[in-house]
Amino acid sequence: MAVQTAPTGDTNSAAGATATTGSAPASVDLGPASALSCRECGQRFPLGPIFACAECFGPLEVAYDLPGGDPEELKKRIAEGPDNIWRYAPLLPVPADVATKPSINPGFTKLVKADNLARELGVTGSLHIKDDSGNPTHSFKDRVVAIAVEAARAFGFTTLSCSSTGNLAGAVGAAAARAGFRSCVFIPHDLEQGKVVMAAVYGGELVGIEGNYDDVNRFCSELIGDPLGEGWGFVNVNLRPYYGEGSKTLAYEICEQLGWRLPDQIVVPIASGSQLTKIDKGLQELIKLGLVEDKPYKIFGAQAKGCSPVSTAFKAGHDVVRPQKPDTIAKSLAIGNPADGPYVLDIARRTGGAVEDVDDEQIVAAIKLLARTEGIFAETAGGVTVGVTKKLIEAGVLDPALTTVVLNTGDGLKTLDAVAETTGPTATIRPDLDAFRTAGLAG
Amino acid sequence: MAVQTAPTGDTNSAAGATATTGSAPASVDLGPASALSCRECGQRFPLGPIFACAECFGPLEVAYDLPGGDPEELKKRIAEGPDNIWRYAPLLPVPADVATKPSINPGFTKLVKADNLARELGVTGSLHIKDDSGNPTHSFKDRVVAIAVEAARAFGFTTLSCSSTGNLAGAVGAAAARAGFRSCVFIPHDLEQGKVVMAAVYGGELVGIEGNYDDVNRFCSELIGDPLGEGWGFVNVNLRPYYGEGSKTLAYEICEQLGWRLPDQIVVPIASGSQLTKIDKGLQELIKLGLVEDKPYKIFGAQAKGCSPVSTAFKAGHDVVRPQKPDTIAKSLAIGNPADGPYVLDIARRTGGAVEDVDDEQIVAAIKLLARTEGIFAETAGGVTVGVTKKLIEAGVLDPALTTVVLNTGDGLKTLDAVAETTGPTATIRPDLDAFRTAGLAG
Ligand SMILES: [Zn+2]
Ligand SMILES: [Zn+2]
Repeated sequence: MAVQTAPTGDTNSAAGATATTGSAPASVDLGPASALSCRECGQRFPLGPIFACAECFGPLEVAYDLPGGDPEELKKRIAEGPDNIWRYAPLLPVPADVATKPSINPGFTKLVKADNLARELGVTGSLHIKDDSGNPTHSFKDRVVAIAVEAARAFGFTTLSCSSTGNLAGAVGAAAARAGFRSCVFIPHDLEQGKVVMAAVYGGELVGIEGNYDDVNRFCSELIGDPLGEGWGFVNVNLRPYYGEGSKTLAYEICEQLGWRLPDQIVVPIASGSQLTKIDKGLQELIKLGLVEDKPYKIFGAQAKGCSPVSTAFKAGHDVVRPQKPDTIAKSLAIGNPADGPYVLDIARRTGGAVEDVDDEQIVAAIKLLARTEGIFAETAGGVTVGVTKKLIEAGVLDPALTTVVLNTGDGLKTLDAVAETTGPTATIRPDLDAFRTAGLAG
Repeated sequence: MAVQTAPTGDTNSAAGATATTGSAPASVDLGPASALSCRECGQRFPLGPIFACAECFGPLEVAYDLPGGDPEELKKRIAEGPDNIWRYAPLLPVPADVATKPSINPGFTKLVKADNLARELGVTGSLHIKDDSGNPTHSFKDRVVAIAVEAARAFGFTTLSCSSTGNLAGAVGAAAARAGFRSCVFIPHDLEQGKVVMAAVYGGELVGIEGNYDDVNRFCSELIGDPLGEGWGFVNVNLRPYYGEGSKTLAYEICEQLGWRLPDQIVVPIASGSQLTKIDKGLQELIKLGLVEDKPYKIFGAQAKGCSPVSTAFKAGHDVVRPQKPDTIAKSLAIGNPADGPYVLDIARRTGGAVEDVDDEQIVAAIKLLARTEGIFAETAGGVTVGVTKKLIEAGVLDPALTTVVLNTGDGLKTLDAVAETTGPTATIRPDLDAFRTAGLAG
């Protein structure tokens, strides 16, 4: 028995071909992935390096023939798998032998039971931080890139690429190096030196583009359509349908780490919104497969106030998302026109969740709160989710008596600037005991 | 049956008490740890917050009554334990229920099979990187601090402290926050802002000392001897015997991850030398317990040329280590007068290993080599071990046909400066295809 997880429709290989710039081998083995399916019109296309529906230009996503059979058998098979995302290979668009291929093997990061933070926030249920700073390059991007790499392998690409201003550049550079791909990453020419180093150290090509991030993206779109870009897999453009599926693994891990139970509430940061929609997709798959009990859960989206198009639409009761010009310290979430915004609104409303935002000061306070209570130093995106969690509990929207999971998707070491101004020594003293006594720190 | 792993001697509780500044409860449960034992004269002392022999001032280390019985049973028990160092609780100075206590739970980091690097270095056997950048604060210090925290708990300390210029400050801050201790960390007042932020963000007290690192250490020694320091556990001073044991877990993990086999060769960085000696202690324990086959292994020590007192002594055939004034980019290894230097010399010679050093240029080249081949961005200490591995293979000292494990003990994000000058974009171009074509990057 096979479970279909995406809307069905007629396959249309001709239409699929029109949208591709790479060359997909005749027979592509991406495990349980059976087709690409348009999220808008349901049209289906064969697996290939395409990302937009040839009929309606809607976004494509991966459809599966997921494994049927005894859920307990599947749980056992997963438990016997490696301590990384490949334990879920039967649910991902990757070949069955994926774990034998060179990869930086992200995932299976810690789900930290945050009792200290729970006490501070008045949570009487259980509160958990899914800490993706434990990934190889210290952000959740390693998950999505790892899946894109396997698609690139299947489609015969030889160069991995992306445009980036941060985490993604390092994730692509590291993954390509280990997996044996050439990489060529595009960044705005005036990026801070620290970020340039993180992007360049893996030895791939790194190209500074004279212009801003929009210029970089425009350039990449041109390159994909040009013969110069032949054989190039842009992880978040022509490989985007596969790439996005990497976020499902967050849902799988959270449920497995809770003992194959759904959380009651989950707080997810919103950049493009893709991560939140894929986490919902992952939870739905686990329910369909019988790996978790079919019960309600609520998904909450978290934004920075300085880039809050989705929370603004949510609060106004709108179905469409009006673009904003980002101005926030949470740079990894600063997407003013989030592609998956409408889907996020739909999921938040359907599950009984919400979308909320916090300002820069609240983000910094939340980073420090998490560090002080749990010893986890989060990226600004983690400050956003923890800050929103606090705000939603105080507003009575999040139920403190339930099981809640909050995502930290990155590492504070990468956004030191955000907290630098307000984080320093308690005291500076001469090296003698009298000075120490006077400082009143003996405690 | 119990296996004794440290030299026996008379217990002497009076002598033990003279050296302590904290107050050890009458009965201390630190699992299989049975006593402290002087590495020089073998004198034994009851478990307590002491670090030097009252008889001869030699360093104290933990002696155990290790579990006897069927090795296969013990392997099974370990395999069923948590995915962190507490799976080895039966071999560590911690209570049996340690995994239930709040901890940042370090360890069980990836052992990466480095086939790409092996090819570049001409290794025909198998080459592995033990990548401790995967720890919660991204260095091996999380391991040693986690053990010190449990000792502090057992001895009734309420404040955790250390002097530090880098990784240790963050590890102590994070561990204390999560475990519910107050922390007070001492640093030189003129530390770079990035390091100050990493040390301060966990919300403990951070005290800048007007002076250099030696002044900080002198001040801490005074504080330990003063009533002002009552109830303070300095992880690497009065808790040092326990702290040091954390490095044994690297040996346990490497062998378990190799399928309960000893590596033939292992390359370890040398700062104080403690880590190398404890890795040897851990390997010896596994042999005694029958968890691995009793066969020869070689331990190699790696230093930076700018701080190479141990490799200098090794090459000169000396038994004593002459102090040096450090001048190297590998700051986490810059200990000019390494306390465990003579023990390191002894182990390298006894096992048939060696101690070698590489200069700053070679360190940077090795960081980039590892990043380019395996997607691992190492701290300068990782550049030292990889660089020394390369040098020893080229010199015919390391056998490329055997199984070799190289330690990376920290994260490149923390030592960006080391590679910043020589790591940047391949090209900077206008955002158009002609400019890209001219740059010759289409590949
Ligand atoms: Zn469509
Ligand atoms: Zn002694």
